Amino acid sequence: MTSTASPAPLNIAITTGEPAGVGPELTAAALAGAAAHWPGATFTVLGDAALIEARARAVGVEWAALRGAGHVGVGHRPLAAASQAGRLDAANGRYVLGLLDDAIDGALGERFDAIVTAPLQKSTINDAGVPFTGHTEYLAERTGTARVVMMLAGTGARPLRVALATTHLPLKDVPAALSVDGLVQTLAIIDHDLRRDFGLPVPRILVTGLNPHAGENGYLGREEIDVVSPALEQAVKRGIDARGPYPADTLFQPRYLDEADCVLAMFHDQGLPVLKYATFGEGVNITLGLPIIRTSVDHGTALDLAGTGRADAGSMIAAIDTAVTMARNRRAG
Amino acid sequence: MTSTASPAPLNIAITTGEPAGVGPELTAAALAGAAAHWPGATFTVLGDAALIEARARAVGVEWAALRGAGHVGVGHRPLAAASQAGRLDAANGRYVLGLLDDAIDGALGERFDAIVTAPLQKSTINDAGVPFTGHTEYLAERTGTARVVMMLAGTGARPLRVALATTHLPLKDVPAALSVDGLVQTLAIIDHDLRRDFGLPVPRILVTGLNPHAGENGYLGREEIDVVSPALEQAVKRGIDARGPYPADTLFQPRYLDEADCVLAMFHDQGLPVLKYATFGEGVNITLGLPIIRTSVDHGTALDLAGTGRADAGSMIAAIDTAVTMARNRRAG
Repeated sequence: MTSTASPAPLNIAITTGEPAGVGPELTAAALAGAAAHWPGATFTVLGDAALIEARARAVGVEWAALRGAGHVGVGHRPLAAASQAGRLDAANGRYVLGLLDDAIDGALGERFDAIVTAPLQKSTINDAGVPFTGHTEYLAERTGTARVVMMLAGTGARPLRVALATTHLPLKDVPAALSVDGLVQTLAIIDHDLRRDFGLPVPRILVTGLNPHAGENGYLGREEIDVVSPALEQAVKRGIDARGPYPADTLFQPRYLDEADCVLAMFHDQGLPVLKYATFGEGVNITLGLPIIRTSVDHGTALDLAGTGRADAGSMIAAIDTAVTMARNRRAG
Repeated sequence: MTSTASPAPLNIAITTGEPAGVGPELTAAALAGAAAHWPGATFTVLGDAALIEARARAVGVEWAALRGAGHVGVGHRPLAAASQAGRLDAANGRYVLGLLDDAIDGALGERFDAIVTAPLQKSTINDAGVPFTGHTEYLAERTGTARVVMMLAGTGARPLRVALATTHLPLKDVPAALSVDGLVQTLAIIDHDLRRDFGLPVPRILVTGLNPHAGENGYLGREEIDVVSPALEQAVKRGIDARGPYPADTLFQPRYLDEADCVLAMFHDQGLPVLKYATFGEGVNITLGLPIIRTSVDHGTALDLAGTGRADAGSMIAAIDTAVTMARNRRAG
């Protein structure tokens, strides 16, 4: 008997996503080492209990034994129709969305300290008659959040982190989507969440320009002068350590990255090719700006690999690892 | 006495570029190991002889001894005004352009097998009253070439090569600058030059989309459907092994790159951040489509480092190495 009470363990929810995809098996594979990797954390796997057990078998995980060890539980929601690996079925569209609702409700109700999401197939949900544009937008709407920021990150001692000022837009719509106010809000969210959830007292943010060579003093575009620089000025006045705009092609070098906690890129294909190259497919997608912690794998449902046991759990492990770290930091703060 | 005649050695011209920048010293540093690195090649260094000797001293290169060994010569052109490291002087603008003319004339006259260019400062030439937008454009004009393609590459056994469909344009002008004909011509130049100068019998080219996720079937933009895919169809009909369009953020992974000789990116900041990250600042800029071989360092004049001996010659060595390889291949073909 001791007189100090142990803190309650963290409880991380994992949505297993599209049942025909690799989500259920990657969740099982990642959790096989849970007790060793994440002591002090417990996991609630959201999905159909029988499906998860069957897919765990496909990757050689003794699911019953893992559950018996006490770190891993299941939040059961029954499939609408039996699911075969690799075969999409719109009958299960509302099931997939239900898992997400279970996770959000649990996190808002403080039963979960963080949500990790496995990939889903947008078309399955749309085919079930529910308009749905993506995890991130749904999370923002369900939590009443006006602006979120997509950030991808590697893991490790000096991880590369890349946040995006715009996300899934046609390239031609990117310039008009940038605004001084929008960039200032984006920088404020990055600054706030990196402090609270990543233990960085003064996050250092490097910002790219929109145009090649950051516009070369207006010669290759004016957005750096008219939008990015004024936003940086306002952000700095608010106490945010944001610098730029820098040419994207020379920014991703050790001499700059060693001095940075995050790069804010102006658009999807300016920031993500280098991030994904650098993280070898083990990147984590983090939604900043939400009231709850949410991380995700950075890949899709990989229907061709589902059920084969050949899909790589690296990104799922990284997503869980990041969620645990963020939840610990938030609780400690 | 033998009865077989040795082939004439290759002769590579190196323009030392802006005299106040790092070009002269990096040229000297790179050539210090010329006899060992590039047997069978000789080098003509274009610039003011006294300037080059002085800057060679700054990086600890015995220039007189190096010249005495017979691999390295100087194509002297006198400075218009004495040059101090780090201090731009428009008086030398026409000198810099003159070096480039010397190189082009020599290559067109077949005295040089290739040109390697050190960085110049566009503003110095413009301030001297000569309209000048860049090395590449000048080379195209002086050699009467309608279309050139900028390709950056690493060195080594399996180098990453990234060519660009558009180069120095404001981002907002990129979508309209893409056309089916233009892309087909670009692919034909890449295919032709990789065969002739890189010893690749059937170059495999992977092509990105313009939009995030390569447009996601038109949901995030139509250029993949309207422009990129039709261009790929035409290229394939011409016997070019070009595939795509692929999402840029997932293309730069070993499982794709291992099957490719070159990636064609649609614009500057889609392809170059990852290329420069992957090559650690030792990338080489190659101008495809010219009648002559031209490579270049992938960095600028680095005025703050000029004369200090602290600039890294890695990119210059790689540019020379690539020029020698290309010239050997072209001569063997």
